[in-house]
Amino acid sequence: MNEKITRFLTDHRPATPCLVIDIDVVEQNYKTLTESLQAAWVYYAVKANPAPEILKRLVALGSCFDTASVPEIEMVLAAGARPNQISYGNTIKKQADIARAYDLGVRLFAFDSDAELDKIAAAAPGSRVFCRLLTSNEGAEWPLSRKFGCDSEMAFSLLRSAPDKGVVPYGLSFHVGSQQRYPNQWDTAIAAAASVFTALQEVGVNLRMINLGGGLPTRYRKDVPPVERYTQAIMASLSRHFGDLLPEILIEPGRALVGSAGVIESEVVLISKKSFHDSKRWVYLDIGKFGGLIETMDEAIHYEFTCDRIVGDQETNCELSIIAGPTCDSTDVLYERTEYKLPIALQIGDHVRIHAAGAYTTTYASIGFNGFAPLTEYYI
Amino acid sequence: MNEKITRFLTDHRPATPCLVIDIDVVEQNYKTLTESLQAAWVYYAVKANPAPEILKRLVALGSCFDTASVPEIEMVLAAGARPNQISYGNTIKKQADIARAYDLGVRLFAFDSDAELDKIAAAAPGSRVFCRLLTSNEGAEWPLSRKFGCDSEMAFSLLRSAPDKGVVPYGLSFHVGSQQRYPNQWDTAIAAAASVFTALQEVGVNLRMINLGGGLPTRYRKDVPPVERYTQAIMASLSRHFGDLLPEILIEPGRALVGSAGVIESEVVLISKKSFHDSKRWVYLDIGKFGGLIETMDEAIHYEFTCDRIVGDQETNCELSIIAGPTCDSTDVLYERTEYKLPIALQIGDHVRIHAAGAYTTTYASIGFNGFAPLTEYYI
Repeated sequence: MNEKITRFLTDHRPATPCLVIDIDVVEQNYKTLTESLQAAWVYYAVKANPAPEILKRLVALGSCFDTASVPEIEMVLAAGARPNQISYGNTIKKQADIARAYDLGVRLFAFDSDAELDKIAAAAPGSRVFCRLLTSNEGAEWPLSRKFGCDSEMAFSLLRSAPDKGVVPYGLSFHVGSQQRYPNQWDTAIAAAASVFTALQEVGVNLRMINLGGGLPTRYRKDVPPVERYTQAIMASLSRHFGDLLPEILIEPGRALVGSAGVIESEVVLISKKSFHDSKRWVYLDIGKFGGLIETMDEAIHYEFTCDRIVGDQETNCELSIIAGPTCDSTDVLYERTEYKLPIALQIGDHVRIHAAGAYTTTYASIGFNGFAPLTEYYI
Repeated sequence: MNEKITRFLTDHRPATPCLVIDIDVVEQNYKTLTESLQAAWVYYAVKANPAPEILKRLVALGSCFDTASVPEIEMVLAAGARPNQISYGNTIKKQADIARAYDLGVRLFAFDSDAELDKIAAAAPGSRVFCRLLTSNEGAEWPLSRKFGCDSEMAFSLLRSAPDKGVVPYGLSFHVGSQQRYPNQWDTAIAAAASVFTALQEVGVNLRMINLGGGLPTRYRKDVPPVERYTQAIMASLSRHFGDLLPEILIEPGRALVGSAGVIESEVVLISKKSFHDSKRWVYLDIGKFGGLIETMDEAIHYEFTCDRIVGDQETNCELSIIAGPTCDSTDVLYERTEYKLPIALQIGDHVRIHAAGAYTTTYASIGFNGFAPLTEYYI
């Protein structure tokens, strides 16, 4: 447990639920990543947590930014970034939004279809464009659907047509799935990208960039391989498939930069059973799926919980618990199938800390479902 | 399509996405329900849509209100309701929130466990309490988990203990699951409730109320049985299990009052395929799961879409489409497995109307995921 956050919670005793983020951890994560992947430009995935405090710190560190919408672009600019540090990475954009981004100075755009390429050509002439490839998400704890990307044949054809449309065919991107457990999982995608590079070269189109997307994990309940294992595997794949002439490398970490920087402090609202004969109890917290923990959907992300009540040996002093949120929506159950143990002595009113909760919590929260306010945030 | 809403959209051409609700439809739904279930008190489930315009109209009609939190209680009071028209129906409440509700004059509370009953007894002495029974949700399109309710044995025991704790054992509630397709589905729960009534009578505890919960459907893509089919089946069950001496009856419609009153106007952002060989196209709208359509989770609720492009016969002029939202989250796909057809001639920039979208859309929306603003709302 982060000492700075512990001290803040002890000193201020803020009302729960709340998220406390240690900005220094974000900086440390950024430095660890850039040091172990010196060849790459880091484009922070703003959607993971767009708090001004985080954006400002990353601007100061020289980070670039992957944005999903015009409001995100505006937030990044407001934090002091220059437009050339920004990628408009959403492949689904209204033409008016592309035009607005262009007016703001953004010149790097993602696409995965002819219609999107046409919109960019019309609203952001002369910009650099990169095409997203559809890839396998095996090994990802938060796998992505087929929603984004196109196959290599289509990517080739679209990028080849880019110069005639008045935009610069700049590179390829892909995403191996969020919270990716296997460092080698980038290899297939890098190989596919290299093939498209080569095929385009043969027809006179020289791409310059490969965007490795997101996927680097953060530690939840279980240890994950250290970031160096990932960056080594990625660099080895790049050398294998591109040889000595490496393209410009972009990477879009979100979770890997901010996940471990945050702790959610919550309170136990109720502990109960459904029947005198039930063996398993229910523990209801004052935060749930609609208050910021949407990544527990399908019990995908397994947050780590701690509380003060554990006395002595954890194995003997804890018992299986179903963990749920406070709303009247019965889908608002965090963990029912996944085995979670909490102290037998746990009491209503006790605080429970949810670790590595810095990513995909604040802006995911509903605006007021069941009348509950969005998550309060502290950046220290 | 509601004429008033069509006129509003034509006259004002509001920016998309937006929700337009015809308050008169809410009134009509309220009247249809109360006329066909004259014996019951309607407690509107505020969580379905807590807009002040809706609450005020329902106050004027004499409705009561089922609330999930103190902010919802405050919204209902602000709309002009008296505290005795309010039920605090969430079985998971902080004691401080119970105390606050009590201070505001609320005297009717739900519970399903001994700990919750103790909290109510401590913070809201003398109040009426009702116990929620755990019931089957067969036939519901948005089934509820085991999160709420306890079994009959526990309900009996807890209600029996209520007088000694200083609260009034008032009744029983249950919920047959939201968007319940089968009018007879209330029967089992009513039978179980009647058994608990009888068992408690035998030990001198006379309950007075049965709360039928929610579950009445609204029409999405498919017709649903008319509300009279439900109310007739419910009244027949009540007579069968309670005889001539019917208890006070409460019902908590949410969706059934506001669902059909609302239309979401959205815009097509992109139409594309992933490969030249794909047979099925993707249609991306400017609203998705995180912008208000969370009930498409697991493709549970099947919204009806219309657009102007259908020329001639719908069957021959429409084609299968995967429908997705605009965010960079790949879970933000509305319908992939469910068969949806949209006009072959559909163009980027076309408007698509999403019908019966008045319930569980506005407050479910994320506060700003991917930088997208929550749903704009118009009440006419």
